[in-house]
Amino acid sequence: MPRLVYLNDQFIHEEKAAISYLDLSFQRGYAVFDFFRLVGNEPLHLEDHLDRFYFSAAELRLPVGKTRDELKQIIKELLWENEIPNTGVRLQLSGGEYSNGAEFISPTLIISQVEFTPPSLSMLEEGIQIISYPHQRQLPQVKSTDYLMSIWLQPLLTQKKADDIVYHTSGLIRECPRSNFFIVSATEKLITPGDQVLKGITRMKVIQLASMSGMVEEREITLEEALNAKEAFITSTTRQIVPVVQIDGKPIGYGKPGRVTKDLMRELRRHCGIESE
Amino acid sequence: MPRLVYLNDQFIHEEKAAISYLDLSFQRGYAVFDFFRLVGNEPLHLEDHLDRFYFSAAELRLPVGKTRDELKQIIKELLWENEIPNTGVRLQLSGGEYSNGAEFISPTLIISQVEFTPPSLSMLEEGIQIISYPHQRQLPQVKSTDYLMSIWLQPLLTQKKADDIVYHTSGLIRECPRSNFFIVSATEKLITPGDQVLKGITRMKVIQLASMSGMVEEREITLEEALNAKEAFITSTTRQIVPVVQIDGKPIGYGKPGRVTKDLMRELRRHCGIESE
Repeated sequence: MPRLVYLNDQFIHEEKAAISYLDLSFQRGYAVFDFFRLVGNEPLHLEDHLDRFYFSAAELRLPVGKTRDELKQIIKELLWENEIPNTGVRLQLSGGEYSNGAEFISPTLIISQVEFTPPSLSMLEEGIQIISYPHQRQLPQVKSTDYLMSIWLQPLLTQKKADDIVYHTSGLIRECPRSNFFIVSATEKLITPGDQVLKGITRMKVIQLASMSGMVEEREITLEEALNAKEAFITSTTRQIVPVVQIDGKPIGYGKPGRVTKDLMRELRRHCGIESE
Repeated sequence: MPRLVYLNDQFIHEEKAAISYLDLSFQRGYAVFDFFRLVGNEPLHLEDHLDRFYFSAAELRLPVGKTRDELKQIIKELLWENEIPNTGVRLQLSGGEYSNGAEFISPTLIISQVEFTPPSLSMLEEGIQIISYPHQRQLPQVKSTDYLMSIWLQPLLTQKKADDIVYHTSGLIRECPRSNFFIVSATEKLITPGDQVLKGITRMKVIQLASMSGMVEEREITLEEALNAKEAFITSTTRQIVPVVQIDGKPIGYGKPGRVTKDLMRELRRHCGIESE
């Protein structure tokens, strides 16, 4: 059965879910989104994702046009109709048809269910290699649809045989295109940049979990400090925690996933009710 | 009669010109475009715009899927069918339906005819007031659809009672969101930033015209130098040349459009065959 998509007040078949070429997302890249995963058929951290979705929308002055309860009801109905467990749900809101840019009178709201690729077993067990690249996401705290740099950089990843990129600004680490970045210091303190980054939901959960048993610091990290860290990892909704074992060709710690990272991976999975993938 | 739009090999009515919600332009802001104007029914500087369109597409690894001659033929047919003189034509190419991000197997090409607002008579005669804002466009030489910052900044314009913004990076002037920026020095030399900016077609024409009668320099301009310039103006396809008489509340020169700027406005109009607007 073709799956349904919610588009501006209607549930329609996904092949029919089309948007005018005049939509501001298409013409001017002006849109926000959020993405949460299902554990079975249950949304994971739904409230947190809705918080951020409304926050992103407000930052871009885009009226969601639905109350939180209405949105939850729509999501519930969509999941019930589609019956595709363990997938993800994407909420997207754009400026709608072109206006003068100051007011958005007909925003486009679309809610769709999508498969996502969890990290491979080898990524989880052996960790990933990342490279650094100078870039600062614009309006970093807003989950906008701007992934221009990220997609543009794909060939560099292939060329460098790397799994991901970490953006830095003048040597200060920010985040990966779709993940947050953490290091574990020599004293086993967790450190992650607190400014000029998207506040990931998984990032928040990791900070909360780690705070219970150890020290967590939100502050700037230089590339040099990261290279000399005991451990490093990234966090995201689709990847949860993935160990980073190499940055720019230099090994982190012993070049293997560290103990603190592995403990956190286990704890987070337990906390989220996610089976080992 | 409803106007036609060219979308992936077909001419269709504009209300039907819709794009899948899975298109990379919608999901990830990954698209390029170009825009040229018609003088009567004749495209202005078509070859230059096509050069840039193919350049932008190549930079983003997006196959246009049409030869230059095919593209020109499509444009010709669109103009003939629509018969709306003195409008603009927008060519847009996006990544198409979501792929792995490395390859684009089904790009979306759309060509549409659009009205545009020329600058008002008072803008041309009295000049505009602009404000500076720290920002560097990503992949500046690519005409991408990324106007996130530009639209986001609209309320600041209203608040500051300004007509436009000029981006700078650590005090080095780059460009306006949709225009290039020039100053006229005390010795009547034309200066415009040459790096980290979109190479505007009107910018290029102004440089060519000015080179014939005077000195032109492409180099970095500090905000301070701009504030102390004799004259300043911006250039774009829709605006041609518009004098800038104030930056951040401080008058440029005598706070009125200067002689060099006015001469260039006249020369450019003559060169392009555009009537005084």
